[in-house]
Amino acid sequence: MTEASGAPAQVEPFDVVDLIHTKRDRGELSAAEVDWLIDAYTRGFVGDEQMAAMIMAIFLNGMTRAEIKQLTLAMIASGERMNFDGLGKPTTDKHSTGGVGDKITLPLMPLVATFGAAVPQLSGRGLGHTGGTLDKLESIPGWRADLTNEEMFAQLRDVGGVISAAGSGLAPADGKLYALRDITGTVESIPLIASSIMSKKIAEGTQALVLDVKFGSGAFLKNIEQSRELARTMVALGQDAGVATSALLTNMNVPLGLAIGNANEVRESVEVLAGGGPADVVELTVTLAREMLALAGKTDVDVEAALADGRAMDTWRRAISAQGGDPDAALPVAAETHTVYADRDGVLVQQDALPFGIAAWRLGAGRARKGDPVQHAAGVDLHAKPGDTVSKGQPLFTLSADEPARFPRALESVEGAWRIGDAGDEVHDGGPLIAERIAAS
Amino acid sequence: MTEASGAPAQVEPFDVVDLIHTKRDRGELSAAEVDWLIDAYTRGFVGDEQMAAMIMAIFLNGMTRAEIKQLTLAMIASGERMNFDGLGKPTTDKHSTGGVGDKITLPLMPLVATFGAAVPQLSGRGLGHTGGTLDKLESIPGWRADLTNEEMFAQLRDVGGVISAAGSGLAPADGKLYALRDITGTVESIPLIASSIMSKKIAEGTQALVLDVKFGSGAFLKNIEQSRELARTMVALGQDAGVATSALLTNMNVPLGLAIGNANEVRESVEVLAGGGPADVVELTVTLAREMLALAGKTDVDVEAALADGRAMDTWRRAISAQGGDPDAALPVAAETHTVYADRDGVLVQQDALPFGIAAWRLGAGRARKGDPVQHAAGVDLHAKPGDTVSKGQPLFTLSADEPARFPRALESVEGAWRIGDAGDEVHDGGPLIAERIAAS
Repeated sequence: MTEASGAPAQVEPFDVVDLIHTKRDRGELSAAEVDWLIDAYTRGFVGDEQMAAMIMAIFLNGMTRAEIKQLTLAMIASGERMNFDGLGKPTTDKHSTGGVGDKITLPLMPLVATFGAAVPQLSGRGLGHTGGTLDKLESIPGWRADLTNEEMFAQLRDVGGVISAAGSGLAPADGKLYALRDITGTVESIPLIASSIMSKKIAEGTQALVLDVKFGSGAFLKNIEQSRELARTMVALGQDAGVATSALLTNMNVPLGLAIGNANEVRESVEVLAGGGPADVVELTVTLAREMLALAGKTDVDVEAALADGRAMDTWRRAISAQGGDPDAALPVAAETHTVYADRDGVLVQQDALPFGIAAWRLGAGRARKGDPVQHAAGVDLHAKPGDTVSKGQPLFTLSADEPARFPRALESVEGAWRIGDAGDEVHDGGPLIAERIAAS
Repeated sequence: MTEASGAPAQVEPFDVVDLIHTKRDRGELSAAEVDWLIDAYTRGFVGDEQMAAMIMAIFLNGMTRAEIKQLTLAMIASGERMNFDGLGKPTTDKHSTGGVGDKITLPLMPLVATFGAAVPQLSGRGLGHTGGTLDKLESIPGWRADLTNEEMFAQLRDVGGVISAAGSGLAPADGKLYALRDITGTVESIPLIASSIMSKKIAEGTQALVLDVKFGSGAFLKNIEQSRELARTMVALGQDAGVATSALLTNMNVPLGLAIGNANEVRESVEVLAGGGPADVVELTVTLAREMLALAGKTDVDVEAALADGRAMDTWRRAISAQGGDPDAALPVAAETHTVYADRDGVLVQQDALPFGIAAWRLGAGRARKGDPVQHAAGVDLHAKPGDTVSKGQPLFTLSADEPARFPRALESVEGAWRIGDAGDEVHDGGPLIAERIAAS
């Protein structure tokens, strides 16, 4: 009741408390209400405490497809929208919901760009146990993440791929809302995750988008049902916005590849670009590349060949150089290492992603708070993967850190996270790497 | 995950995001967690946006009896606690959840005090369509609400009853939380209402407490089931805190009495103290007085006699005088009135409380924002009650305001809120005035 006698005429079209009541009581917000809410929040007319109540109501009561679409559009409308129409080639991008050892963007961007599609990959920095693509690349001496729109456009035209920091001009409402979710316990909400990711990707101006939605212990969403719902929601949002979108549900119960950290993940990515690298990293890179190229209209492509014959590596070197990096420079190496060895003969039957991600984070590879520095040489290198036969005394994994004081807590986090069993024992890897593909209906 | 490598040692025993997750995911907060939460919120370590997310989770997922008790105790512990043990007489108090025309505290306080019980009535000001006891009394020239603890004690000793503003020293955490609920759409939550009311009443130091829990269109909670749950929750809280507590569920579908406003409600209260007044106001005053006196150990009392023979009026005059008021002074009269007349012969079959409350508010009797002034002479005087036979041309109700510009919107709010039917038609008054009594189990 804001219509009291004597009160000044209401200039705002809605009362935020009414809108909170609607969502709290399981009603649906109209398009005009969602637009006003996001605009008023961006302006500061709606306060953080009011938006916090709203997003907890959204977390607990959900949103309809129409509401999620409008929320996404409203967040896009809060900032600038990029446009790559003048490039003369199709744009295609990938987004991963994040996992332990997920460095796929690094080999994927040059691989896809090699086939004449433009890859405008706007990335973020890591927070918590999942790493950030920019943190990894910043372990390359000279490489810089912050490009202007003009630099991005020129690099897409000349090299075909770019990995750059998302400027604060894209969907600023999302930036504000994400920071609020982080401190109010409302992160793991499918409508809020979907609209956050898709508002940035649609504002980025890509014509095609492949979503790598992780599930499992090392993922944001633990079970495949939630990941499927998130994937479907985002694919529908992309479809509604005219972006060709598909999603893969991929297994994040075990770390991806053998390297977890920053510089070591760059090393592993370069191995893949040189035609080698761990089988799971290669499989996911190749599958995502085919998917991105198919959505960009390029179906008759032999992506493995471009890894084997050095074409993808060549694009990588040009992309790194274009952003000031030296592709031949030595990557940082940690001052201290600590290796754990097999205490018996047998088969590695368990290697949980989350504890190894936390170990890398505690070693200094990740950050606890926005703005903290990361230690580029810190991390974990695995020497065996689930299903591998191991012998007593064989190294299982190596921890790297700049300060040895970090080892005890990192070792603590992986206690009980790996196990050597006997031949024939069940291997707890959560099943195949690529579980499902979800396309627009 | 606040336990990052490199982070300073955590000095706070809990992480508020973990506590929000617990409540969000339908878990139960421990006593230590609730205590810390309220203390950290009072200190400002937990922010308004975090508490807003928490109270929306509480609103939607509820609280256990143990959690509500701890929340109440934590809010009491945030401030001072009064103690009237030295008075030499029992203390007994009443709290109403608020309704349209609810002036019962005014005749009730002196009536109960007449029988030797002390009534330390700490009251508030009105917000929205329900009035505030202090606003009503402030229409008496000279009367002041803000007494020191020493003045209260002296008046309880000498007169037996006092109606005073609740100081900010009692349950300050509740004051902060109530303001937050008001702007975040989380007002109508039973655990939050119950702990808010009971923290202040227990901190006030009364030994006995009767709760007048309203239900119906003019009440905070519309249906009797919710009111019953609120009453049971509060009675249990009182019991747990050692305060003899009972509750009446009373009907607020029609206005209480004939006067809705401030000065006119004082006038009606004085009529009751003079042995007259509307039957419903007398019935509720007498019933609550008996209940308050019984909880204070005084069961053999003839409360009607004290109204009829002027003893209660005498206590009233002494209490008003003790707080600087002149009981003989003329009360303010509005500059303008507007009367609505019956357009046919028949029976008044409908008179909804909420629209009449809103009308009084729009006339200037209430405030939209904390701190706004009220117009003491503004309000509504009813000339007929549901069930009354009326004749064409007879006055039905009169609106009073200082500015005639206020009449159109007030008249708009009562459009369709009253109806004249035929003899034998059902009267929509929501049933008997006093529906149930709820005592400690």
